Amino acid sequence: MALSLGLLATLSPLRAQDSSADPLPSWNDSTNKQAIVDFVKATTDLNKSTFVPAEQRIATFDQDGTLWVEHPIYSQIIYCLDRVPALVAAKPELKKVEPFKTVLTGDREAIAKLPMKELEKLLAATLTGMTIDQFTAEVKKWLADAKDPRWKHPYTDLTYQPMQEVLKYLRANGYKTYIVTGGGQDFVRVYAEGTYGIPPEQVVGTVGGTTYGHDKNGKPTLTKQPKLLLNDNNAGKPEGIHLMIGRRPLIAFGNSIGDEQMLEYTKTGDGPRLALLLLHDDAVREYAYGPAQGLPDSKIGTFTQKLYDEAKADGWLVVSMKNDWKRIFADDVVSGQ
Amino acid sequence: MALSLGLLATLSPLRAQDSSADPLPSWNDSTNKQAIVDFVKATTDLNKSTFVPAEQRIATFDQDGTLWVEHPIYSQIIYCLDRVPALVAAKPELKKVEPFKTVLTGDREAIAKLPMKELEKLLAATLTGMTIDQFTAEVKKWLADAKDPRWKHPYTDLTYQPMQEVLKYLRANGYKTYIVTGGGQDFVRVYAEGTYGIPPEQVVGTVGGTTYGHDKNGKPTLTKQPKLLLNDNNAGKPEGIHLMIGRRPLIAFGNSIGDEQMLEYTKTGDGPRLALLLLHDDAVREYAYGPAQGLPDSKIGTFTQKLYDEAKADGWLVVSMKNDWKRIFADDVVSGQ
Repeated sequence: MALSLGLLATLSPLRAQDSSADPLPSWNDSTNKQAIVDFVKATTDLNKSTFVPAEQRIATFDQDGTLWVEHPIYSQIIYCLDRVPALVAAKPELKKVEPFKTVLTGDREAIAKLPMKELEKLLAATLTGMTIDQFTAEVKKWLADAKDPRWKHPYTDLTYQPMQEVLKYLRANGYKTYIVTGGGQDFVRVYAEGTYGIPPEQVVGTVGGTTYGHDKNGKPTLTKQPKLLLNDNNAGKPEGIHLMIGRRPLIAFGNSIGDEQMLEYTKTGDGPRLALLLLHDDAVREYAYGPAQGLPDSKIGTFTQKLYDEAKADGWLVVSMKNDWKRIFADDVVSGQ
Repeated sequence: MALSLGLLATLSPLRAQDSSADPLPSWNDSTNKQAIVDFVKATTDLNKSTFVPAEQRIATFDQDGTLWVEHPIYSQIIYCLDRVPALVAAKPELKKVEPFKTVLTGDREAIAKLPMKELEKLLAATLTGMTIDQFTAEVKKWLADAKDPRWKHPYTDLTYQPMQEVLKYLRANGYKTYIVTGGGQDFVRVYAEGTYGIPPEQVVGTVGGTTYGHDKNGKPTLTKQPKLLLNDNNAGKPEGIHLMIGRRPLIAFGNSIGDEQMLEYTKTGDGPRLALLLLHDDAVREYAYGPAQGLPDSKIGTFTQKLYDEAKADGWLVVSMKNDWKRIFADDVVSGQ
């Protein structure tokens, strides 16, 4: 009998949800941590009126600044800048044309000042015109080589350990986790599965059309076009969620004004809903650029006082990196700090 | 000991894959049935070189004519036609305007002759301009009331029982099943979960943009716009698969020239791939409108001789409704035949 009970324990699907282990060990024992755990318990307990069937458990996460470092510059923009030398080598006439001319100087300040129109040319030239297979290969190569200058680690190492725990905790409780990013859908898909355990079909991002065709050997190809289908920022986030998922999330997690509509759309759904905003207030372990950092409005970035006030008024949780998180990164990254 | 073994059998996750039960009882014991079973075994057996990890097991299905009846007219077009009286009641000035004027006559032959430009006006007027919630409620109401004139059953009853078995069989073997339809993504999502066990996020269809806004009470809304993002037919099918899934399917199943590129894209991937075409050759139990039915080219419809030849040349399976299927519908539908 002892043997068969032991076997039962091994086979039991309940084992993954062992309630005695702390599912969020990198979080301090704060009210925010408790609110996340309480919400998951409320939506997964069959005996509660707040129970939600598994197929409706959708959780959406912004990426830049919510799942990994976005400061001082989005990793995808660094990718585009890093692609310029190869681009100019292939088409030398670009050397004298903006924005490539400025990018080639390496002068970060001048690059930061490029007008939006020139930046769009850079994005179009580095993110479209090639096949999906070529693009994926280029991004993989870059990710393997490129390093964040402060932490001296690949960008995919700079994910927030407390958020990785939230992703895993939700999945262990039947939630489907999605990335809903202003970044490029094809770009993020290259590493989302390995980095976050999020498969390509659960990455919603800014996305352009592709064109189906054939290469010179007659093999089918999909070529990235500079035709924008979805700008997955601001109102584009709930629009993208409808396009790609077709259900309103139960949980949404963001960190900037680009996430405002996703959080509002999520929180105003019927039944239990959870909206969370990550406040970057940890100048020592990461960066401090949210409100209440003594910075002028112009330097606050994308988490404004107005957004903070809306969060407080509408019952969104504001998570403080400084106070809610025991650690920011996995231990091997911290040692490089 | 007997008791504990009984419990183990109940709990064992292997039970769902019990190899002694026939997973496709509505299929005749044909080479096509065997090929489907062999493919599933080859891709799910860890000891075979053809094994494919579960997360890459994507199967895509056309809907109209592949999962349910499409003849003599797509159900969604009937929905649009049925909406016209309510539309004209709300906007009486439409009564004298084409295509509404002709639709109101109820003259099927005249309606069938409406030019594409007029049909597009009909689609725009009945499928856009309302919120997603309003649209979903209208479609649900229609599905509950409308009946196919031949079988006297709701359209959602007219799914092919052998295909329902394929969907379940694949899911029991770790495959993620998707609908990839030329029909409207929002339309098909309304019933796909209840009808096929396919959740909204696994429905890829022809889709337009939405606009995020607020109703007069300040609640967020998504309003359907007449702006086409994806025409999910022909080349649009692999393009839609990339947009919404981001992986090449292992299995694709279609029935018309609108599925040609999806089947080609699927079959030409590396490793094991299965492409299937459903041939409508059963004039008694359903309809016969594929090739080799003694019909002139103009009456063959969307499964042409050219497509048939391509299937044979490229190793796609051609499934005959007449020869491969024991039954077409679930038993309660057949009684209405």
